[in-house]
Amino acid sequence: MDYFGKQYHPPGTSPGTLVQYHTAGTSEFLLRLIDYTNTAYVEKELATMDECLPFLERDSVTWIHMQGHPETDTLLKAGELFGLHPLAMEDVLNRGQRPKIEEYDGQLFIVMALPIFADKNTRVEQVSIFVGENYLISFHAGDTDIFEPLRKRLRKQSGRIRTQKSDYLLYSLLDLIIDQGYPLLETFGEEIELIEEELLSSANQKTLARIHAIRRELLLLRRMLWPQREILNFLMREGHSLIREENIIYLRDCYDHTIQIMDLIENYRDMAASMIDVYLSSVSHRLNEIMRVLTMIATIFIPLTFVVGVYGMNFSNPESPWAMPELHWYYGYPLVIGIMIAIVIGMVIYFKRKDWL
Amino acid sequence: MDYFGKQYHPPGTSPGTLVQYHTAGTSEFLLRLIDYTNTAYVEKELATMDECLPFLERDSVTWIHMQGHPETDTLLKAGELFGLHPLAMEDVLNRGQRPKIEEYDGQLFIVMALPIFADKNTRVEQVSIFVGENYLISFHAGDTDIFEPLRKRLRKQSGRIRTQKSDYLLYSLLDLIIDQGYPLLETFGEEIELIEEELLSSANQKTLARIHAIRRELLLLRRMLWPQREILNFLMREGHSLIREENIIYLRDCYDHTIQIMDLIENYRDMAASMIDVYLSSVSHRLNEIMRVLTMIATIFIPLTFVVGVYGMNFSNPESPWAMPELHWYYGYPLVIGIMIAIVIGMVIYFKRKDWL
Amino acid sequence: MDYFGKQYHPPGTSPGTLVQYHTAGTSEFLLRLIDYTNTAYVEKELATMDECLPFLERDSVTWIHMQGHPETDTLLKAGELFGLHPLAMEDVLNRGQRPKIEEYDGQLFIVMALPIFADKNTRVEQVSIFVGENYLISFHAGDTDIFEPLRKRLRKQSGRIRTQKSDYLLYSLLDLIIDQGYPLLETFGEEIELIEEELLSSANQKTLARIHAIRRELLLLRRMLWPQREILNFLMREGHSLIREENIIYLRDCYDHTIQIMDLIENYRDMAASMIDVYLSSVSHRLNEIMRVLTMIATIFIPLTFVVGVYGMNFSNPESPWAMPELHWYYGYPLVIGIMIAIVIGMVIYFKRKDWL
Amino acid sequence: MDYFGKQYHPPGTSPGTLVQYHTAGTSEFLLRLIDYTNTAYVEKELATMDECLPFLERDSVTWIHMQGHPETDTLLKAGELFGLHPLAMEDVLNRGQRPKIEEYDGQLFIVMALPIFADKNTRVEQVSIFVGENYLISFHAGDTDIFEPLRKRLRKQSGRIRTQKSDYLLYSLLDLIIDQGYPLLETFGEEIELIEEELLSSANQKTLARIHAIRRELLLLRRMLWPQREILNFLMREGHSLIREENIIYLRDCYDHTIQIMDLIENYRDMAASMIDVYLSSVSHRLNEIMRVLTMIATIFIPLTFVVGVYGMNFSNPESPWAMPELHWYYGYPLVIGIMIAIVIGMVIYFKRKDWL
Amino acid sequence: MDYFGKQYHPPGTSPGTLVQYHTAGTSEFLLRLIDYTNTAYVEKELATMDECLPFLERDSVTWIHMQGHPETDTLLKAGELFGLHPLAMEDVLNRGQRPKIEEYDGQLFIVMALPIFADKNTRVEQVSIFVGENYLISFHAGDTDIFEPLRKRLRKQSGRIRTQKSDYLLYSLLDLIIDQGYPLLETFGEEIELIEEELLSSANQKTLARIHAIRRELLLLRRMLWPQREILNFLMREGHSLIREENIIYLRDCYDHTIQIMDLIENYRDMAASMIDVYLSSVSHRLNEIMRVLTMIATIFIPLTFVVGVYGMNFSNPESPWAMPELHWYYGYPLVIGIMIAIVIGMVIYFKRKDWL
Repeated sequence: MDYFGKQYHPPGTSPGTLVQYHTAGTSEFLLRLIDYTNTAYVEKELATMDECLPFLERDSVTWIHMQGHPETDTLLKAGELFGLHPLAMEDVLNRGQRPKIEEYDGQLFIVMALPIFADKNTRVEQVSIFVGENYLISFHAGDTDIFEPLRKRLRKQSGRIRTQKSDYLLYSLLDLIIDQGYPLLETFGEEIELIEEELLSSANQKTLARIHAIRRELLLLRRMLWPQREILNFLMREGHSLIREENIIYLRDCYDHTIQIMDLIENYRDMAASMIDVYLSSVSHRLNEIMRVLTMIATIFIPLTFVVGVYGMNFSNPESPWAMPELHWYYGYPLVIGIMIAIVIGMVIYFKRKDWL
Repeated sequence: MDYFGKQYHPPGTSPGTLVQYHTAGTSEFLLRLIDYTNTAYVEKELATMDECLPFLERDSVTWIHMQGHPETDTLLKAGELFGLHPLAMEDVLNRGQRPKIEEYDGQLFIVMALPIFADKNTRVEQVSIFVGENYLISFHAGDTDIFEPLRKRLRKQSGRIRTQKSDYLLYSLLDLIIDQGYPLLETFGEEIELIEEELLSSANQKTLARIHAIRRELLLLRRMLWPQREILNFLMREGHSLIREENIIYLRDCYDHTIQIMDLIENYRDMAASMIDVYLSSVSHRLNEIMRVLTMIATIFIPLTFVVGVYGMNFSNPESPWAMPELHWYYGYPLVIGIMIAIVIGMVIYFKRKDWL
Repeated sequence: MDYFGKQYHPPGTSPGTLVQYHTAGTSEFLLRLIDYTNTAYVEKELATMDECLPFLERDSVTWIHMQGHPETDTLLKAGELFGLHPLAMEDVLNRGQRPKIEEYDGQLFIVMALPIFADKNTRVEQVSIFVGENYLISFHAGDTDIFEPLRKRLRKQSGRIRTQKSDYLLYSLLDLIIDQGYPLLETFGEEIELIEEELLSSANQKTLARIHAIRRELLLLRRMLWPQREILNFLMREGHSLIREENIIYLRDCYDHTIQIMDLIENYRDMAASMIDVYLSSVSHRLNEIMRVLTMIATIFIPLTFVVGVYGMNFSNPESPWAMPELHWYYGYPLVIGIMIAIVIGMVIYFKRKDWL
Repeated sequence: MDYFGKQYHPPGTSPGTLVQYHTAGTSEFLLRLIDYTNTAYVEKELATMDECLPFLERDSVTWIHMQGHPETDTLLKAGELFGLHPLAMEDVLNRGQRPKIEEYDGQLFIVMALPIFADKNTRVEQVSIFVGENYLISFHAGDTDIFEPLRKRLRKQSGRIRTQKSDYLLYSLLDLIIDQGYPLLETFGEEIELIEEELLSSANQKTLARIHAIRRELLLLRRMLWPQREILNFLMREGHSLIREENIIYLRDCYDHTIQIMDLIENYRDMAASMIDVYLSSVSHRLNEIMRVLTMIATIFIPLTFVVGVYGMNFSNPESPWAMPELHWYYGYPLVIGIMIAIVIGMVIYFKRKDWL
Repeated sequence: MDYFGKQYHPPGTSPGTLVQYHTAGTSEFLLRLIDYTNTAYVEKELATMDECLPFLERDSVTWIHMQGHPETDTLLKAGELFGLHPLAMEDVLNRGQRPKIEEYDGQLFIVMALPIFADKNTRVEQVSIFVGENYLISFHAGDTDIFEPLRKRLRKQSGRIRTQKSDYLLYSLLDLIIDQGYPLLETFGEEIELIEEELLSSANQKTLARIHAIRRELLLLRRMLWPQREILNFLMREGHSLIREENIIYLRDCYDHTIQIMDLIENYRDMAASMIDVYLSSVSHRLNEIMRVLTMIATIFIPLTFVVGVYGMNFSNPESPWAMPELHWYYGYPLVIGIMIAIVIGMVIYFKRKDWL
């Protein structure tokens, strides 16, 4: 795991410098254009940015989505066509950004954190969005295509989304990204339930490691998702010209989801903390039980061993009546055995009374 | 226990989609209408929403209450009659919402969390409320009918409630829901007292599990009840046209109850934390006591066992005066016994002086 | 101890319902009237509220104080005479209220928490106050009469208080109630000093229990006294018509005392937390010391016991020169004793060098 | 140590009552007057307050400083001359006040906390200051004379301070009082360094006690110095007529020092907390090391002792070939010794492989 | 390590007093001037401040950088030339300042904290900056020359920076200083990864010391970098005449970096805390494993040793049939061996069933 998780230029680099990062094992780059009005719908994959030119002049909503790592040239071309600010484009490439919203004359630039659960691991990927009057450009620096449900809704002519402008498209994207948190957290909830059962039956070091892993992932999620609240707040409050009054109610719904997800994360974090307490307490309880019983066994046998040691001594002065006469008594041996049984019974009673056994 | 506790649509679903959830073991759906003015009072169970039509045009307060899981059709019909917003209706069905208040032109939509104590378990159920000028629609997604005391007060013509509008009815509902916290917390208080007594007498792992369970439930309660403060704040401050000036004083009383309940919860949480400390400290103290005494017994007997071991050795060279002559002394055996008694007394004195015994 | 400590009506009860609670062991109810101007002073105990009627019309300050649990009728009569709001009267009876201030047209209603130290226990009692232009009604739901110093000052004609209106009387009451915290906290300070000395000399489980008890009581005090800050803030800031400008400086003094008391409580809470740490660390240190020394003794004797065990073996083949010839050496026994002494010295040196002894 | 540290009147005492506290072991009372203009400078010790009368009418800055506990009469006289408010005078005598600033028409009353390090102990003493247009009265309830550096600067005619009014004198006093924190904290820093070295070499219970003592003193300092921030904030923001615009920049410098001192205190508190962790972990580590090695020694010898015990048994039936024939073998004894050596080697290898040794 | 890390004058020193501190082992002092317009560029090292006089009158941006500890005279000369405030100059010399921004008529004074990683240690050095309309004076009290990348950009005529005024130069410096945090934190990230691996394989006391060291350094960083947020906030919000509207977007980018760095620090601190938990839990787990197995071995042998002790007793009364007849049985010895084997098997089964082995 890469804890730094942030791409940056060497300190002192000129602002707006674009450097392309090639990450091993990521699939190819995909440039998809969707252009729709109430009546028309076009969806096609583009080879170069120039191909989207004919769509820009029309009075339609144009959504350009780039999946994977864009070439610097493609990005620069987009920057030229839509007037993207160099600092914003730098943020698109330098992944690991904190979610944020910025306004460059008439254009909104939004960075979102998309939580992904894959290969039993939680990952947060960056989605960058530019929105203008009648276009939206989105960049998703990852492999998973999560936008298919949205495209499905766009293809149907009857949906509300087709009658709306880019602000509703923006809402739909934000909603889609934020709602990815629900299935992820449901998985966490199931994992926590499993661990709780394990805690009661057969907890070991691995259980603890799993709890710690969950805590760390929840921490990561919280840090990445928390700033998204501010993005929605900004959109709802600012009365931005791009966001129409009637759609603010949808953003409020979106905002509620963010809060609910934060609440769930907090809940799980508390549970994880409590599970660690339970684990530690049960481990120490189990060990204490063992130590206690074993020590008790040892303690009972130690005086007995002393007694038999006494009668293993070799004092023998035939003339002395003090030279261990017990050894020569008729009932000496049974007597000693009796004494030892008495000692055992006495100790057990004492321990029982003291509530130690 | 279901830690996720939230119903949600797959990410990307169109907003306002209504899906009916059937939960096993919940009793049948109930649609009850109460319509009252200062002088008249009607209470009846409806089969369909259409039956409430005649009451809506009159200048009376109409309270429609739906107990259990409403059919999507019924909900849609209500939405049509009262102009409910699709997003709000979605929240009514997708239980597990955070308490909140929202305003849709002239109409208030409130989600409350109703704490229920049943079968030795604490549960939080969702009550959703729509209020308009002269109607109130409430949805309670649970089995328990908690509104009977309110209906009783409504049936009496003399009560203040009959002279008032829907805002006072709203206050009465909120007050009723919030006050459910008192008996619940009284139960918690008794449980905590019981556990405290147990801590002093016979604490074991189960005691700890109960404390942890209480902490978790208090945590859940706090999270669900905390946002209700904001709801009352909103109603008191906003000067909403639905809430008349003279009734704000009642909402303030309601607000005080919320604060008191939060205070009690905090109190109990602190007590639970402190009880865990006491438990751990007393468990470790008890074990330490045992270990200390047992180790001391062992320690006293170990030198003695060594001494008797010495005189169990078989050195015997008849010609040598160095071959364990003690064994042949006249008072050898009593001497050794005396030495051993001296060792025991010496060690006990030493331990006592060191304050170890 | 009753952890719930709150009296409440069943959920759904009509607001303003007055129910009288009879608590066992509380002394009788007392209704006392004091009426004063610059020149005149009347102090008498009343049997019924009606007796105070003649005083109300005069241009004097009338202070009616009810000690103990008022009868519902008396309260209702007072409500009628002074126009008390039903919700406020409900709060007077339902003890366990959080300190608060409320304004009912021209009248202030204040609930204060009076800290009482009695029978080695800290208790918080409720004092409710209504203030109007020229009257003040106070309710103290407890036995202790703490207002005598104030009455003494009132009886003297020369005091500043006799030249002032009900606002100064209110200040004097608040000041008196708040300052009860000082002797209480002084007691806590002494207790903490005692415990600290005990920690150094002879700490045991009881010491810990006392620290935990102090922490709980401080917690309770903090929760009950904290909201009083807001009451004073309210009085100082609001520019309420009842509070004259020139007396605000006195309320500020009162406010300072509240802050100082909160500071002291925080201080003591930190000290208590730190004492628990010291206790746990010293307990574990003491036990570790014991275990270490005892284990060391055991460890030294175990090899010795092995050695004497060796020469307790009965190998004896008269023909074999390998059958424990040491047993038959001339200096066998002293040699073994020497070896054992050497083992002990070696181990002690080793332990000393390792800094274990 | 007196944890309460606060002087107060019995609850119910009339506000503004002055009571003189005599504390044992404090040096005598000193009343010093300094009067200066740009050109003239007078410094003298006064016997009574009346002697300062001639200086008050002149257009100069008059600084009256009272060191030690003032007689009630002197204070009352000062109150009469300068119009001091009774509540403020009460605060001068009732030491243990929280730092605060108050405004009584045209006059500022400031209470500062002066940190003093003496006899290896940290103490906080109260300095009370009244400032008017052309006078400043200060009270220092302690023995140490810390104001000499300031008097030296005043005596020099060339200094900036001589050209300024009472506001700059006030700044100089505040600056002097606040800066006392630097040498104090430097001492703390050195102490912490010493303790850290001790932690690495020879930590014991005393080290822990010292860390706890430092934490407590830092806590005390933080609580007493924190409110001073608000005093400076008040002076800087309020645009008070006494503080001239041009001197605000100096107060800002003073404010920065307060923040820096708070930062240092926070730093040290974190370090102290971390040192406690390190101490506990190293203590437990050391003990664990001992216990582990000792237990291992015991464990190795226990099986050996068993073996030699076996051959100490006295089975002897001359007719039975099963009655411990090993005892009579030719190589019996060396064989047993060999077995025991093998057991030791086996166990050591096992322990090594398990990484326990 | 010097924990105090702050240079200060003795309390009571006149404000604005300049004292030169000579720190051992720092390289010589360097005074560098850069003067540029869109077309011209001059870079030279100066011997005295007077040499910069000719550049000040021209309409160019003049950047004077002082590396190392400036002589008091040089500083005073600069103060005279640029009208620097004495309090600000005092802050330049008294290193260990908290980052802050101050405004002295038309001039901004900024103190920044520059994080440096050298010799496996994190250090924070002070950079002080004065900015005016067409000049910027910077002081860096350290050896490392971090400004070379910026000078490189300045030397190129084509860069944006050459067309801008002193505000863009200021931004470039702040950006450069803040971005030094990225490589530093990347190093921390790698160190944390290394420690995590070590935790899983071979954690020991040194690992813990390293984690504690990281925590302390992160704490230091957080404290020093946190106030820089406020500096950028001040510059962005204030609408200061020196900062042109168009460059605020760059400061916002800078601000984002500060937040990201704070986020990373928080992340690492959480990880460090969690690693300490894991370390402690794994250490105690390992020790418990050892103790458990060893105690079990001891426990199994103790009863056996008792048994063999029994038959080492010397009871022998030839006439008594009770004098240990077992010793004389034909199969006595094998029987005892069998009993002992049975005991071992019994105990192992019991331990296994109890899940202790």
